[in-house]
Amino acid sequence: MKNRAPNMKYLFEPQSVAVIGASHNEKKIGYKILENIIDSKYPGKIYPVNPKGGEILGLQVYKSLKEINKEIHLVCIAIPVKYTFDAVKDCASCNIKFIILITSGFSEIGNINGERRIVEYANKNGMRILGPNIFGVYSSKAPINLTFGPKDIKPGNIAIITQSGAIGIAMLGKTKAENIGVSSVVSVGNKSDIDEADLLEYLVNDKNAKVILMYIEGIKNGEKLVRMLKNSTKKKPIIVIKSGRSERGAMAAASHTGSLAGADEIFSDIMKQCGVIRAESIQDAFNWCKFLANSPSPKGENTIIITNGGGIGVLATDACEKYGVHLYDDIQTTKEIFTDVVPEFGSTKNPIDLTGQATVADYECALKAALKSKDIHSIICLGCETAVFDAKNLFLIIDKMFSESRPSKPLVFSFFGGIEMENLVNHLKINGIPALSDVYEAVPCFGAMYVNYRNIKYQEDFDNKSEKVEMDNNIINNIIKNVRKDKRLFVLSYEAERIMKAAGIKMPESNLAHNIDEAVMYSEKIGYPVVMKVVSKDIIHKSDIGGVALDIDNRKEVIDAYQAIIYNCRNRKPRAAIEGIEIAEMVQSGTEVIIGARRDELFGPIVMFGLGGVYVEVMKDVSFRALPVGRREAMSMIKEIKTYPILLGVRGEEKKDINAIIDVIIRLGTMIQRYNSISDIEVNPFVVYEEGKGVKAVDVRILLSSVSVGSIK
Amino acid sequence: MKNRAPNMKYLFEPQSVAVIGASHNEKKIGYKILENIIDSKYPGKIYPVNPKGGEILGLQVYKSLKEINKEIHLVCIAIPVKYTFDAVKDCASCNIKFIILITSGFSEIGNINGERRIVEYANKNGMRILGPNIFGVYSSKAPINLTFGPKDIKPGNIAIITQSGAIGIAMLGKTKAENIGVSSVVSVGNKSDIDEADLLEYLVNDKNAKVILMYIEGIKNGEKLVRMLKNSTKKKPIIVIKSGRSERGAMAAASHTGSLAGADEIFSDIMKQCGVIRAESIQDAFNWCKFLANSPSPKGENTIIITNGGGIGVLATDACEKYGVHLYDDIQTTKEIFTDVVPEFGSTKNPIDLTGQATVADYECALKAALKSKDIHSIICLGCETAVFDAKNLFLIIDKMFSESRPSKPLVFSFFGGIEMENLVNHLKINGIPALSDVYEAVPCFGAMYVNYRNIKYQEDFDNKSEKVEMDNNIINNIIKNVRKDKRLFVLSYEAERIMKAAGIKMPESNLAHNIDEAVMYSEKIGYPVVMKVVSKDIIHKSDIGGVALDIDNRKEVIDAYQAIIYNCRNRKPRAAIEGIEIAEMVQSGTEVIIGARRDELFGPIVMFGLGGVYVEVMKDVSFRALPVGRREAMSMIKEIKTYPILLGVRGEEKKDINAIIDVIIRLGTMIQRYNSISDIEVNPFVVYEEGKGVKAVDVRILLSSVSVGSIK
Repeated sequence: MKNRAPNMKYLFEPQSVAVIGASHNEKKIGYKILENIIDSKYPGKIYPVNPKGGEILGLQVYKSLKEINKEIHLVCIAIPVKYTFDAVKDCASCNIKFIILITSGFSEIGNINGERRIVEYANKNGMRILGPNIFGVYSSKAPINLTFGPKDIKPGNIAIITQSGAIGIAMLGKTKAENIGVSSVVSVGNKSDIDEADLLEYLVNDKNAKVILMYIEGIKNGEKLVRMLKNSTKKKPIIVIKSGRSERGAMAAASHTGSLAGADEIFSDIMKQCGVIRAESIQDAFNWCKFLANSPSPKGENTIIITNGGGIGVLATDACEKYGVHLYDDIQTTKEIFTDVVPEFGSTKNPIDLTGQATVADYECALKAALKSKDIHSIICLGCETAVFDAKNLFLIIDKMFSESRPSKPLVFSFFGGIEMENLVNHLKINGIPALSDVYEAVPCFGAMYVNYRNIKYQEDFDNKSEKVEMDNNIINNIIKNVRKDKRLFVLSYEAERIMKAAGIKMPESNLAHNIDEAVMYSEKIGYPVVMKVVSKDIIHKSDIGGVALDIDNRKEVIDAYQAIIYNCRNRKPRAAIEGIEIAEMVQSGTEVIIGARRDELFGPIVMFGLGGVYVEVMKDVSFRALPVGRREAMSMIKEIKTYPILLGVRGEEKKDINAIIDVIIRLGTMIQRYNSISDIEVNPFVVYEEGKGVKAVDVRILLSSVSVGSIK
Repeated sequence: MKNRAPNMKYLFEPQSVAVIGASHNEKKIGYKILENIIDSKYPGKIYPVNPKGGEILGLQVYKSLKEINKEIHLVCIAIPVKYTFDAVKDCASCNIKFIILITSGFSEIGNINGERRIVEYANKNGMRILGPNIFGVYSSKAPINLTFGPKDIKPGNIAIITQSGAIGIAMLGKTKAENIGVSSVVSVGNKSDIDEADLLEYLVNDKNAKVILMYIEGIKNGEKLVRMLKNSTKKKPIIVIKSGRSERGAMAAASHTGSLAGADEIFSDIMKQCGVIRAESIQDAFNWCKFLANSPSPKGENTIIITNGGGIGVLATDACEKYGVHLYDDIQTTKEIFTDVVPEFGSTKNPIDLTGQATVADYECALKAALKSKDIHSIICLGCETAVFDAKNLFLIIDKMFSESRPSKPLVFSFFGGIEMENLVNHLKINGIPALSDVYEAVPCFGAMYVNYRNIKYQEDFDNKSEKVEMDNNIINNIIKNVRKDKRLFVLSYEAERIMKAAGIKMPESNLAHNIDEAVMYSEKIGYPVVMKVVSKDIIHKSDIGGVALDIDNRKEVIDAYQAIIYNCRNRKPRAAIEGIEIAEMVQSGTEVIIGARRDELFGPIVMFGLGGVYVEVMKDVSFRALPVGRREAMSMIKEIKTYPILLGVRGEEKKDINAIIDVIIRLGTMIQRYNSISDIEVNPFVVYEEGKGVKAVDVRILLSSVSVGSIK
């Protein structure tokens, strides 16, 4: 199918569209869509299709798609569910590229087969489906408003992708109310075929789209999405609202859409990895989109606050810390810049305090000084209502500043007080100048801006090309083959150990003893103390039945333990087939961590890292990343956990061997990517010693996937 | 002074006021204040004072306070700082009760002595000072607008206390712009005398004040504040904005005001303990105040969401979880209530989904059903713009619902979309109906409401009368006396152990041996293994110099260790006076916690609890409470730490002896309250065993305060 997939361009810039289900009835969706296409001054060909024929809104109606007999880039289907498959078949016979399937009544109400049948048929015939269960597409480039939503959408530079139709239509209303322009709006609904990742392919190169906003309820192909997001955020900011964050919310989301809501911790970590800016509320997302679409990029992270009130300056400082905005604190330089413009009792230390006596002229001088200085990269300008605050003239000054030539640095304004201050904020907004009432609305815009700034600036650092990791593929493949032959999904511990060794991960030395003599021999070869464990595919929880003996110190203890283990197993699991007893090196204690790699249902191959024991169990102090992951990204996931200082050494302890942890993260990640049969690898505990003294994987659990998945490139 | 302190009533309801510094110059503060008093239709006597005499705004000007020769309840001083002390002296000679000291130029710029001198003089003469460095007081009860801020303040039922003048004046502007009524607004500025706690004394009983909003930058007498807050939140909601939350913000705050910003963790825990609702932004605080001032109290915690869109319902569900709003989930009952009003494809499960086809009639039916049901206690009603959404008629329906008789249940509305939805929200607002644009604005109002609900409902449970705790006061006082005699501030470990035992806290058995024979004797009495530690006031870090020996198993080891310790100490600290060697029981390992009590600079006596070791050091996983603390509150602070599950038993371990921890928290709390000499007690580690198996305080550190503080009642 891939080779035949049509270019996404036809979805956003079709030169001809047909509407199957175009209606004569003004109340019907099939009428509204046609009306919106015409109203949006779409310059391409419009072909209404309805078996009744006739004329709608001055356009000739075709009785069938075939009757049109011209090239059609895009077909919109808005007919009852029972007729949709036939319509899709008609599309195939007319060489259609894209279908916008408005109709609902598919997987969202349990009709999964109906949906699958259409998609499979379409894909087989080189067509792609947007929807079903959507309100359509708006694209300013065509321009075309192929939706049954609001009219008169303002063209601009925000692209919106929404999974919820209701929220999408409401968002369109909101953009109109707030005079925000959009480059395109796409309703993805059930995401039966085209999803966010497909759309990003187009949007990331669409110069009209300066910011991309996505409303997501659930994810279907997370792996593809992650790949596209990683790529796209290096070029433009992407803001995601993900509902169903809470457990209860996820339940509500699952009942509301067809897709899985997914554990929020994994989603959250991976979005951060991808450089996505996550918004909690729609209002925040809109504020950020509007700001980012209109603001220049900063040249650095030296942010300055200019204020006429200490209190509001402190509030903004708190907000900067919360949202990751770095306040410039070179006291000497700020003194030089502002000393002439700050009045007595004011402060030339960031936040720059012009005092409650600040006049319009004071603001003007301070703003000009800040704009002029090369050391300052962005400016937060605040004001509280005072007796001398002259909102009207301040507006004129700021407006002049922006209209002569837009400042080359990002600026955000926030003014707090009565009606005059509100008017000031509103007038600035109307004139396209970023202004918000509350500092906790203004500062997060800068927070979003700096996420984007860092995405672009540090992209080289985080280019996560998979390292070339050497592994003994033959050994690993052979073991997997044997496990499969055995019809097992779990890998026995000695097999897992051999896999780990073949993958270049240090394991305690161990051998499988089949009798007491071998047990003694191996014990003496490894060196005391040793650990002894029964090996049997029928015994999973070895300790529980007395199948493990620790801290075996000499020959006599080996013999006793051997007999005791065999006795316990025979007694408690009489039917278990025992392969022998594993004799292993007893690992010295150190800092225990947990490292895992998994083929996640939503995100594909992911890695996990955390401190071991109670930390992972009680504190859930773990971090996740989607693969591939390079050394820097592995380091970032280690740093992200709260207990990271323990690895740096607390209470006079030495720093731990963090490089060795990175190594294992990368190796496990490589394994899960390279061996499609493996679904889960978990090393827990993985003991880390002091820097340079290495690590040891104590216990490894490997599971195979129930069905061998297709090769992953 | 206390007996002579005048009633706060005179500050809010004065029957006569004098303005020292009343000015003929319209630009001067002394003119504006007078003008505001007159404009606010203050019915009491107004006496302008200015040596120039004459007439201002039609009022006779007195040349001095004495010249007035009538009873004056309240004097406002608005003259340059150098004349203020004389003015205060004049006040004293005229038996004034309250002075509002507008003037700035005191501690906020380092003039601490000038401020102290005035306050001391005033208090000695039975007067109290509000300020200095403030904009004044507004009180709707008088009514009087004794400020140089905005005119035409709308009377209502929100009381505002603000430390920042600039923010206070801006807030007043905001209340006017948003048509919010206030009962009183007090600028506290430098808080040289009257502070938030004093004002709460009046406000908690002021029927006009339904909600109290405080903007705090720093705290001076936290102990008094905590006492008043605990009291007040049982009667009405208190919302606090505390700036300087972040480290950087606290620095900025400290440079901006005279008072300490305080560690945010302690502040945060103690505010929660007090039942305070904490807002991050001014906008949130205003939303909550407005909502709480106008909404009835809920009768329970069963909240229902009614929506026409699944997506927005999920967003609201997420917000409910975040803000502690409990969604009603008795599926059977909600089905019974809503089955007749929810259309096909909708949901009778919370969130109740009326679907995108929902009409005004559907909303009306669902709202009525929810209002009628006894099982539902509060309602969040949401809407997304749709083709059938009729904002105008929905407004009429809701408005009718509220105007006939205000619903007896709390309701909040949130509608999202274009200009019609915005108008709907605005019209509802104008009509005093709680409505907000974003669900993340609406739901937190309910969050604040339920904090208040729980404060009132569970107040009995949290009445933290100090338990009567028996301690051997004689022993403790004698030891303290000896330490004082010795001119030490730290208590030696064997003294600390004796104090702990006298306070009823279990310590490992121990004795002080003065020679080898005694060491052996005590070791055998206690039973092996034992621990040996040098006792010397000159050696603090015993382990570092080899002054400690662990795990001593027999007579021979006792003798060796004794000699080794003495040798090490003589060698490394030749001048140290050695009292002997402590022989102590070796404590069995268990779960280590840390329990402390301290006289905090800001909050007075507080207790602290956390899991020991790395948890407290790396994770800062601790909780704080201001004293007194009862058993339930102690339990709540134990539950609050993230590692609490460890105390409940993880990995098959038994539950730990939590009651014994509570006991120790209460005993340490009692000690810090009872013995004024003690400034710090810290038990770390404190070993906790399984339930019923007790606890043991392993290491105790007690410090005395450098100056014996006054008795605490």
